[in-house]
Amino acid sequence: MVIVMKVGAGEPQIENVVKKLASQGFAVHRSTGVEYTILGAVGAKVVDTRDYEVLEGVKEVLRITQPYKLASRPFKPDGSVIRIRDVEIGGKTVVVMAGPCTIETYEQCDLIAERVKKAGAKVIRGGAFKPRTSPYSFQGPGVEGLKMLRAAADRHGLIIVSELMESCQIAAAEQYIDIIQIGARNMQNFGLLRDLGQLRKPVLLKRGMAATISDLLLSAEYVMSEGNHQVILCERGIRTFETYTRNTLDISAIPVVHKLSHLPIIVDPSHAIGIRDKVPPLARGALAAVADGLIIEVHSDPDNAICDGAQSLYLEQFDKLMNELKVIAGAIGRGI
Amino acid sequence: MVIVMKVGAGEPQIENVVKKLASQGFAVHRSTGVEYTILGAVGAKVVDTRDYEVLEGVKEVLRITQPYKLASRPFKPDGSVIRIRDVEIGGKTVVVMAGPCTIETYEQCDLIAERVKKAGAKVIRGGAFKPRTSPYSFQGPGVEGLKMLRAAADRHGLIIVSELMESCQIAAAEQYIDIIQIGARNMQNFGLLRDLGQLRKPVLLKRGMAATISDLLLSAEYVMSEGNHQVILCERGIRTFETYTRNTLDISAIPVVHKLSHLPIIVDPSHAIGIRDKVPPLARGALAAVADGLIIEVHSDPDNAICDGAQSLYLEQFDKLMNELKVIAGAIGRGI
Amino acid sequence: MVIVMKVGAGEPQIENVVKKLASQGFAVHRSTGVEYTILGAVGAKVVDTRDYEVLEGVKEVLRITQPYKLASRPFKPDGSVIRIRDVEIGGKTVVVMAGPCTIETYEQCDLIAERVKKAGAKVIRGGAFKPRTSPYSFQGPGVEGLKMLRAAADRHGLIIVSELMESCQIAAAEQYIDIIQIGARNMQNFGLLRDLGQLRKPVLLKRGMAATISDLLLSAEYVMSEGNHQVILCERGIRTFETYTRNTLDISAIPVVHKLSHLPIIVDPSHAIGIRDKVPPLARGALAAVADGLIIEVHSDPDNAICDGAQSLYLEQFDKLMNELKVIAGAIGRGI
Amino acid sequence: MVIVMKVGAGEPQIENVVKKLASQGFAVHRSTGVEYTILGAVGAKVVDTRDYEVLEGVKEVLRITQPYKLASRPFKPDGSVIRIRDVEIGGKTVVVMAGPCTIETYEQCDLIAERVKKAGAKVIRGGAFKPRTSPYSFQGPGVEGLKMLRAAADRHGLIIVSELMESCQIAAAEQYIDIIQIGARNMQNFGLLRDLGQLRKPVLLKRGMAATISDLLLSAEYVMSEGNHQVILCERGIRTFETYTRNTLDISAIPVVHKLSHLPIIVDPSHAIGIRDKVPPLARGALAAVADGLIIEVHSDPDNAICDGAQSLYLEQFDKLMNELKVIAGAIGRGI
Repeated sequence: MVIVMKVGAGEPQIENVVKKLASQGFAVHRSTGVEYTILGAVGAKVVDTRDYEVLEGVKEVLRITQPYKLASRPFKPDGSVIRIRDVEIGGKTVVVMAGPCTIETYEQCDLIAERVKKAGAKVIRGGAFKPRTSPYSFQGPGVEGLKMLRAAADRHGLIIVSELMESCQIAAAEQYIDIIQIGARNMQNFGLLRDLGQLRKPVLLKRGMAATISDLLLSAEYVMSEGNHQVILCERGIRTFETYTRNTLDISAIPVVHKLSHLPIIVDPSHAIGIRDKVPPLARGALAAVADGLIIEVHSDPDNAICDGAQSLYLEQFDKLMNELKVIAGAIGRGI
Repeated sequence: MVIVMKVGAGEPQIENVVKKLASQGFAVHRSTGVEYTILGAVGAKVVDTRDYEVLEGVKEVLRITQPYKLASRPFKPDGSVIRIRDVEIGGKTVVVMAGPCTIETYEQCDLIAERVKKAGAKVIRGGAFKPRTSPYSFQGPGVEGLKMLRAAADRHGLIIVSELMESCQIAAAEQYIDIIQIGARNMQNFGLLRDLGQLRKPVLLKRGMAATISDLLLSAEYVMSEGNHQVILCERGIRTFETYTRNTLDISAIPVVHKLSHLPIIVDPSHAIGIRDKVPPLARGALAAVADGLIIEVHSDPDNAICDGAQSLYLEQFDKLMNELKVIAGAIGRGI
Repeated sequence: MVIVMKVGAGEPQIENVVKKLASQGFAVHRSTGVEYTILGAVGAKVVDTRDYEVLEGVKEVLRITQPYKLASRPFKPDGSVIRIRDVEIGGKTVVVMAGPCTIETYEQCDLIAERVKKAGAKVIRGGAFKPRTSPYSFQGPGVEGLKMLRAAADRHGLIIVSELMESCQIAAAEQYIDIIQIGARNMQNFGLLRDLGQLRKPVLLKRGMAATISDLLLSAEYVMSEGNHQVILCERGIRTFETYTRNTLDISAIPVVHKLSHLPIIVDPSHAIGIRDKVPPLARGALAAVADGLIIEVHSDPDNAICDGAQSLYLEQFDKLMNELKVIAGAIGRGI
Repeated sequence: MVIVMKVGAGEPQIENVVKKLASQGFAVHRSTGVEYTILGAVGAKVVDTRDYEVLEGVKEVLRITQPYKLASRPFKPDGSVIRIRDVEIGGKTVVVMAGPCTIETYEQCDLIAERVKKAGAKVIRGGAFKPRTSPYSFQGPGVEGLKMLRAAADRHGLIIVSELMESCQIAAAEQYIDIIQIGARNMQNFGLLRDLGQLRKPVLLKRGMAATISDLLLSAEYVMSEGNHQVILCERGIRTFETYTRNTLDISAIPVVHKLSHLPIIVDPSHAIGIRDKVPPLARGALAAVADGLIIEVHSDPDNAICDGAQSLYLEQFDKLMNELKVIAGAIGRGI
């Protein structure tokens, strides 16, 4: 933490700040300039910088350490690779996750699993518990749905990512899921994050609509601080003034996360844009910006899907997209 | 719902849309113009407008009904008044809620309760369960804290508002709390909202940082659709590009909510701005914009508060502010 | 400027930074901690902090001085008062500016002038040159309109604020205008700002829709650096994700500007909200948050106004609002 | 325009709306439902929808036509190709524009021109007039700089894009420039846009930081409505709450513009992200999302560049990036 004193701050004011710093366990380095006195404070304690901002004579307080540690790049400079059976997320190979918004029937799951596997996906997605903004919308098939998805995934050699919304769902659901997805609206559901930290199962943590990259890493830190270090981050669009698209996909977050953190980051173009025909350009764009994976909504019959049909790719569209993605991955030295 | 067909959309395309509408139970009114064909669809079903946007020949789909019903103004044109003992929220009188960020000791609670009561507050606030962005920050005193706050509130004739973060906290905590506060980060924690809907206790629902006013009303609808109609809304700042302030307090939300909904809306200037000296201008501004109440952080010793001391008013500041608020309330025909 | 070196940054890296700082005229204070080395740099030069961020071994670069000087509070700690004849902006008295969106006829100007003067306004507004997002919209009456407004203003003892959009309009228009308004879209039209700096006439500078408070003060600095210190700032709403309102009025900007700068700040509730019935709550809110003035659209016949009729107050609404504003001004120790 | 009347709106209210529509030249189609009456209005006039929203009995007013015409896709369904000598922007081939932030010397221009040409760029960029947020920053070399850039461009067979900020610069500068760039801060400088409309020279129009895609197309319409149809759009990042990056690059804008408009759209990753090492991922991402071109800052000596050195690529980085871009272009059926 660096504290810059106001021009003309008196000695008693400076001493008052130094005293408070010392009382909180900080080592203080004082640098007296012609205009400004600057106090450099080094210590382990996480403090509210505003507690210093309101002290008399203080001009500005600047935090120099990130508030997250386990999630930070220096904690694991070579990057984390999350392994689930033969799938590695965060390695050389880009991992594609695909599947329907919501699980409907076993036949639907089986057909989609067969096709996305053939096209090159390694993970199948499918919602059993659906967070809906309206209480009157379909809320998902629950555990029964997960059983269908599990059967289809096993038959075709895929692993499963599926969303949970509440801690009370974990016990019944976790046996069917390989990667537990936490949605954007639950990114700061801290109780849930702590409970996930008790598990030894990968967590796919989606960025909240108003979350900075730093907020996202702090939420990962919640999970990791409880002992579960298998966190995969997911960029899925943030809320901005542009309303033509559902959200604004922030592909800059990819290289930024790679710089700040060792955790892998994947991208969800489907929820970012919300309309089918614009999903492939965003998927390709994210991959070219070095995303570690993609999670894409694909449906065998989007026109009659229970939800999010409008943003789900047709199976043929997905095939075509995968072919393009393979070339792009090659251009940046990665496989798919 | 209004569906505008593209210039040159053919009869088969139009009929296709009409058929889909009919299959979803909509009555369709067709209006054929020189350029555009417009289809007006009336029905009860909540549909995803994008399912129509992706149909061939469709130019645009416009929703004309709000997705919330119980929370909408027409449901209760005269407005809702939430009554807790002798306190009415949403009536002629502006209700001020005040107290510390977190409950620390009984003495702290008692001193603050005495002073804010004397100054004119009717509700005491105080956190027992704290949602913190960092896992390393103080997480609140829990139920023990609520007991202290209850004792102080009872002694001084105040009612209590306090935040819960998880459904599992309800059973142990609800007996000590008169108004259950749901924080901005939990505004779309739908499981929690449903569980609150089972209670018969007022809920103070804070607007999420990225939530539109419509989103906020939909979250209220979640609670109300389960049978609990005692919802008080709270504007506490939204996230914008301006970083000098913690959040951007959106006082326009006050008259907008009053127009769209019958629910009362109060304002939290402390969390919006995050620094003590700017709380009074915002509190006055919100009141002058016809907020039904205010929730303000006040502490007997802000300099040594466990959290959010920098944004807590000194007791004397609160006294002065209350005097100003009384005059402003009078200027717009309200009491305090 | 404070430069924090990475943990483990070597001596050559540190020396490289120090050398660059010295070459740009900075005095450098070095503070070597157990973990971090911190370099405090003091100097007059405005540099791009990123030039240091990209140097090897640098963790972070923090600017500690504001990039504006003449507009900063320390430059004139007691605050600026802009005087135009008998009107003072930035003093004890809140100044209300009112009038139509666009100048239409002499009769319209005269009627509105008479009424707003009687209600307590000191300044009349009225557009002669209109910035319109569509090239097909009415672009304003030009100088002919200003002559009408001048005649009406003189007859009723009002001063005039009116917008100019281009430097080439100044010569013909300035004789009719007392305060030159610069719209939000021109806040960073730097050539125009410089030209205004050559005048000795007050400038009302509106905050851009995506401008931070710091950006606004830098634009004021452009005008002031050319010698014209008579700048009045204006908050008129920023662009956010909330689309129910035209813009989001940021009343927090009022106390923030008062802290950072000595320049007066007024508020335009009409353009912020865009709909008549919500203008009074915002106007009162802004005043209660200690705005130095208000600029409000008022029309004698809003239903037939050429533009912005929907956000213009009826004359009777304005009368009622002024009465409320007077009480609120009193509550915070100001007159109107 | 579609006007939805409130439930219970009376016949006189409906007739009042119909009368106003008719008086503004609209043909009205009335559709009377059980709940709602919907009025479909067809006509050429651009009106302020709020003028109808404030009428009694009106629930909502929905615009169904875009306010831009010449810039809209239906105006030229096959898309526009802008031709400058042998370069085509908007065709099969992706056009890369590269060069320094500001023109410094002839030698600098010549060296950079040689290298970017060799790497595959067709256009050289270089600033002569610089819009700077601070009045104390370097403001560019002016026309003298353009002469240097022209000489270098001619020598290496490149065409030139360079920014103008004011109409008064056009006369002296246009002879040296092939594509006139208009910066984000001038996107709504309507006088300047009109003046550019008088020219017969391509205009590169950058999206403003707070501009929606619709706003951007309306600004293009300003230029086009004066007769100059050679407009190239440029996405360069919008302002959001995320502050780690300078701006948030909105790659979704690429497919959206392609749907709404026939104009080509290119992307500026350098100004979006602001730091060199993250420019290549964004450049690749934009190309993969089907941008028609890229404009990238490249410098022969970024460490000593007069401005924006931190975001300028080294020449070797640019070479490497171009090789990657060529593979990606191939993956989506385009050349470079």
